[in-house]
Amino acid sequence: MTSFRSLEPLIRPGSIAVIGASDEPTRIGGRPIAYMKEQGFRGAIYPVNPRRAMVQGLPAFPDVAALPAAPDVGLIAVPGEAALQAVEELGRRGCKGIIMFTAGFAEVDEAGAGRQRELAATVRRYGMRLLGPNCLGLFNASIGFYPIFSSSFETGWPLPGRIGIASQSGAYGTHVYSAARNRGLGTPICVTTGNEADVTLGEVLGWMAEAEEVEVICAYAEGIRDGASFLAALDLARRNRKPVVMMKVGRSALGGEAARSHTASIAGDDRVTDAVLREFGVWRARSTEEALDIAYAATKRIYPAANTLGMLTVSGGAGVLVSDAAEALGLPMPPMPEAAQARLKALIPFCAPRNPVDCTAQTFNQPDLIGEFAESLAREGGYQSILGFFTQAGGSLTMGPHIRTQMARVRQAFPDRLWCMSVIAAPEVVRAYEADGFLVFEDPTRAVVALYAMGYFGRAFAAGPPTTVPLPEVTLPEATPHEAEAKRILAAAGIPTVPERICRDAEAAVQAAEALGYPVVLKILSPDILHKSEIGGVLLDLADASAVRAGYAELLERARRCTPAARIEGVLVAKQLRGATELAFGILRDPVFGPVAMVGLGGIFIEVLQDVVFRRCPFDAAEAERMIRSLRGFPLLDGARGRPRADLGALARALSALSAFAVAAGPRLLSVDVNPVLALPEGCWAADAVLELAPRPLVGSEREG
Amino acid sequence: MTSFRSLEPLIRPGSIAVIGASDEPTRIGGRPIAYMKEQGFRGAIYPVNPRRAMVQGLPAFPDVAALPAAPDVGLIAVPGEAALQAVEELGRRGCKGIIMFTAGFAEVDEAGAGRQRELAATVRRYGMRLLGPNCLGLFNASIGFYPIFSSSFETGWPLPGRIGIASQSGAYGTHVYSAARNRGLGTPICVTTGNEADVTLGEVLGWMAEAEEVEVICAYAEGIRDGASFLAALDLARRNRKPVVMMKVGRSALGGEAARSHTASIAGDDRVTDAVLREFGVWRARSTEEALDIAYAATKRIYPAANTLGMLTVSGGAGVLVSDAAEALGLPMPPMPEAAQARLKALIPFCAPRNPVDCTAQTFNQPDLIGEFAESLAREGGYQSILGFFTQAGGSLTMGPHIRTQMARVRQAFPDRLWCMSVIAAPEVVRAYEADGFLVFEDPTRAVVALYAMGYFGRAFAAGPPTTVPLPEVTLPEATPHEAEAKRILAAAGIPTVPERICRDAEAAVQAAEALGYPVVLKILSPDILHKSEIGGVLLDLADASAVRAGYAELLERARRCTPAARIEGVLVAKQLRGATELAFGILRDPVFGPVAMVGLGGIFIEVLQDVVFRRCPFDAAEAERMIRSLRGFPLLDGARGRPRADLGALARALSALSAFAVAAGPRLLSVDVNPVLALPEGCWAADAVLELAPRPLVGSEREG
Repeated sequence: MTSFRSLEPLIRPGSIAVIGASDEPTRIGGRPIAYMKEQGFRGAIYPVNPRRAMVQGLPAFPDVAALPAAPDVGLIAVPGEAALQAVEELGRRGCKGIIMFTAGFAEVDEAGAGRQRELAATVRRYGMRLLGPNCLGLFNASIGFYPIFSSSFETGWPLPGRIGIASQSGAYGTHVYSAARNRGLGTPICVTTGNEADVTLGEVLGWMAEAEEVEVICAYAEGIRDGASFLAALDLARRNRKPVVMMKVGRSALGGEAARSHTASIAGDDRVTDAVLREFGVWRARSTEEALDIAYAATKRIYPAANTLGMLTVSGGAGVLVSDAAEALGLPMPPMPEAAQARLKALIPFCAPRNPVDCTAQTFNQPDLIGEFAESLAREGGYQSILGFFTQAGGSLTMGPHIRTQMARVRQAFPDRLWCMSVIAAPEVVRAYEADGFLVFEDPTRAVVALYAMGYFGRAFAAGPPTTVPLPEVTLPEATPHEAEAKRILAAAGIPTVPERICRDAEAAVQAAEALGYPVVLKILSPDILHKSEIGGVLLDLADASAVRAGYAELLERARRCTPAARIEGVLVAKQLRGATELAFGILRDPVFGPVAMVGLGGIFIEVLQDVVFRRCPFDAAEAERMIRSLRGFPLLDGARGRPRADLGALARALSALSAFAVAAGPRLLSVDVNPVLALPEGCWAADAVLELAPRPLVGSEREG
Repeated sequence: MTSFRSLEPLIRPGSIAVIGASDEPTRIGGRPIAYMKEQGFRGAIYPVNPRRAMVQGLPAFPDVAALPAAPDVGLIAVPGEAALQAVEELGRRGCKGIIMFTAGFAEVDEAGAGRQRELAATVRRYGMRLLGPNCLGLFNASIGFYPIFSSSFETGWPLPGRIGIASQSGAYGTHVYSAARNRGLGTPICVTTGNEADVTLGEVLGWMAEAEEVEVICAYAEGIRDGASFLAALDLARRNRKPVVMMKVGRSALGGEAARSHTASIAGDDRVTDAVLREFGVWRARSTEEALDIAYAATKRIYPAANTLGMLTVSGGAGVLVSDAAEALGLPMPPMPEAAQARLKALIPFCAPRNPVDCTAQTFNQPDLIGEFAESLAREGGYQSILGFFTQAGGSLTMGPHIRTQMARVRQAFPDRLWCMSVIAAPEVVRAYEADGFLVFEDPTRAVVALYAMGYFGRAFAAGPPTTVPLPEVTLPEATPHEAEAKRILAAAGIPTVPERICRDAEAAVQAAEALGYPVVLKILSPDILHKSEIGGVLLDLADASAVRAGYAELLERARRCTPAARIEGVLVAKQLRGATELAFGILRDPVFGPVAMVGLGGIFIEVLQDVVFRRCPFDAAEAERMIRSLRGFPLLDGARGRPRADLGALARALSALSAFAVAAGPRLLSVDVNPVLALPEGCWAADAVLELAPRPLVGSEREG
């Protein structure tokens, strides 16, 4: 497993040199020093400024060479050439990490990208790690370390807590920090990565997945630059049961455009990103508010894999609303046991005891009943998540204290549950409920999403890392193979293919047809004709020897007419399978995440409805089955419209085998298109396949020869 | 048009009698009096209490008969029989309206439903209007009228403003009020309707659509009881340019269940409700928070039909996020003009001037540039909605005042635009921005939804009421007709049908086939066999006379074998149309909204993918075309996969004609299923149709005979 320790000097250093240190505490080179002084950074601070002996009360140094010791971190707050030079000097002095505010690199133009490559090379040469360039810096409140030029701390310092923020965007990272602080959430660490010439967001996530200061990770990304570290980080976070909430933006055409001009990020294929995040149980948030709702709920560290929601409400209307929201998400709200319902009904005849449990405003006259009802939900209902909806009554001067006392008593008796209150109350009242151990959301719909997310994390943690998938031995040919060869290669990797034979003359074709059994399909076979159907190179439903003989002649004639230069290797005779449902399997190579498998039902499902599912390779048959089941068109494989049920096990095994093949084949495999895959009640077969290969790189001896 | 004036005495009365008046200001019969005294209700208050001479300092009366005058409104705060008796007495005295807190009616059981019917009859007999029973009451802050027993006012009274709240649920209605108040929104009027034995939510909406106190309507519904008044209210609100934001809950199975036990509401077919709300430009909110976001934005009363979004941001990350959100909703963010981009680039070289316009933190050193950039967005960009993202800087002590000054100056110069700020700031700073005329949302994603909604309203207001659709003359047969008759009826109403003939013997069938041209389809014709294909009663692709002859015999044989008792009227010979794309048209009768049309592509699109669109009847061809275009499978009609383009005009005309037919046919028409409708490049034809009719009610003379 990747270790993310090399980021230690950047985030937990013992000393820092500030290149471009300013005496003015609001200047870019002044803020970090002012912040660190105010927050009591425990390490040494070396201001570097050739024009001053003292900076903000600290002795300053004219240049890097004059520093009394090699700093752990060099913070670069000077522009242009001076910045590059400082990095070089810091490297020479034995500095371990660079944090670089300086902008004007890859985000600007090609020349800037060149300077950025140079910068990265310098850093590598000295074995340093680099955060940025074009980043806002970071803070680690636990040691008073503030190499950051945000103005966010004007209105307050980070609160105690365990939410880590990792963001490619600096301004947005501190926006998340400020929004979190504004609602009382503790974020001890925030790291912004900017252009990521060296340290990537994935590495920061990995560091947080290991760091004890962080229990919940809140991330913002415009594009993932390094798949390997990103995947390793998500894997580590899952193993360590640390939920990751991610805003991955740039999903739209417009957003992707904006991302490019912002941190020079390539947003990537959003369907692939989405699949990767789902694979690791990352919650993909659509807004900052949602991200913080979920991070907030996650601070309870209760992640029920078998989540259920029980609701206690004083408003039947809120009960209906929450039922809708829970069902839309897939958060079960099973009914209370019959006996419990009868008991509650005896307590308050007009109550609705099923779930949502409407205890009605009657409880305002008998506050004890609130506790009684809540306890029944916890004990008899056994719900993992319990939402109490008390709206303004929860914050009222007369009812509020009663509600608080009753609910707190029951919560204490069932501390393993996720307890959540939906109340409208003054901030100090909300804080009091929180001090009692409750999550508080004014809006019940937001509460439902957050509670649902805890189960989502719980299932991901319970599932653990996927089973390893054995990889087949694969030897790829020199060049892109023709259909029959492609299928032979796939068959060897465990993907069943339609029985077929290569025939070099009409009589061989007839013999093959007799052996396979009629009806048969005839296809022209040529490495130069990849799209056979376009030239009429496929004949279906040939029912006897004479049809096969005539068909053979016809195919050759068509090939000669349409593509006179094509090398014809003969004709492929294949058994025609009837009554099949058609699917398509595919492999594409994502530039960040490597081979990705795709599955969809054939025809309109893929072309018109884009009803396809993606998954990073490899994966086992159980995962393949989940993919197939999640297709909108899945009912067609499951007996809809009077069709026979397809052999789902065979399909899943074939798809999993294809995913293993894609990994084993290595980077020369550019894409695979298995279309159609014919699904029958027993078995499934690839009827056509295209393998696209990169040319084999010349090895030494060939090059010399 | 319906008038909603009859609700006046309930909402704007001159006097009120409180039946069950309590001296205790926190009791159910005490709160209304305490509230009205405190808020200075301008009318007379008559406490009715047989055991006290004075109630809360007001002279009390032993019973209704003893009142000095007939009150405009009687408020019933006593349980059981006494409540019904009080209503009777109030009616006798000439009271005009009843507000009834009393519960235990239709929401409980069948006996309760009986009592409720009785209550409604009493009220009708005296020409009164009734709010409730089982309601929380209402308030009209503009006249200090508070016949309501909520505890919501403990923490504050309604703020000045123009948002009206209409809610079936009492507790949820006051939750919306409290949530609104908590964020500074003014809601002068809130009406809760409870069981709706008489006054429905629709009527309350209609009253608000006319009332000058209300400019924006925020509604909560579990089930719509009276389609006519609801539709009239929505129509009126649209004509009066008053946006309606509605939470219609009970969309899920679980939620529908909860609604029934709450206000005895039937949630209804959610797809129909959804279509009705869309038809009238009502915004359907998924959460209270979203509803209030949109009501808040609507208080600006700026509804740009051609909405565009320009964004000024200090965070490129926020720009990407907002671009994603805007594109997902369909809110255009066109780029700034080239010349403007060049000018901004000259001002700040590192800025991103396209849109989102990232003015970068550079502007914090030159605050004037903020104004310059904002003005460029308004003047040169010409955006209708302008979002400024300044995060914590907007609330900071150093930058905040500069940002406010700059932005306020530009907003004043362009007061016709929707100006919105996304800042993290203390409540008083937020109020200051609002006082300058800005909408303020901390979360930029929520801002985008609210701004988009203003354009949604704008388009609805601009479109105005739909064009009237001429209705055909329709004479329905006595009983459900057979296929040929059904198609004849539809053809008469303007829906083209496949050329076909009824044949009573094989030779007639051959003649018909020769006349229509081969190939033909043969179908068994019997009023007793509605599902022909189940008994093999349809033969396709008959290519010559002998096939038709054999087919005729075969069909009769099959019918005799499978349904010996069926009356066979012969065989239908129809021209077989090849190469068509199949659709299905349908009509269903919604118990609330009457005939509703449905359209979908045939086969899997309807059965597996539920890819169907609903619309209340009647509607014109333009609307029918919009419906067809909104199908997920629409590309199949538009040339996808090499198919010929279907005749969209013909399809739209046929669907519109069907919708007019459904209305003209009246309530005896229970359903229509036209399936398939064959769409060709020129024209479309109904190939099969089932009309389901209710039996004709006997008229007087028939009954006697």
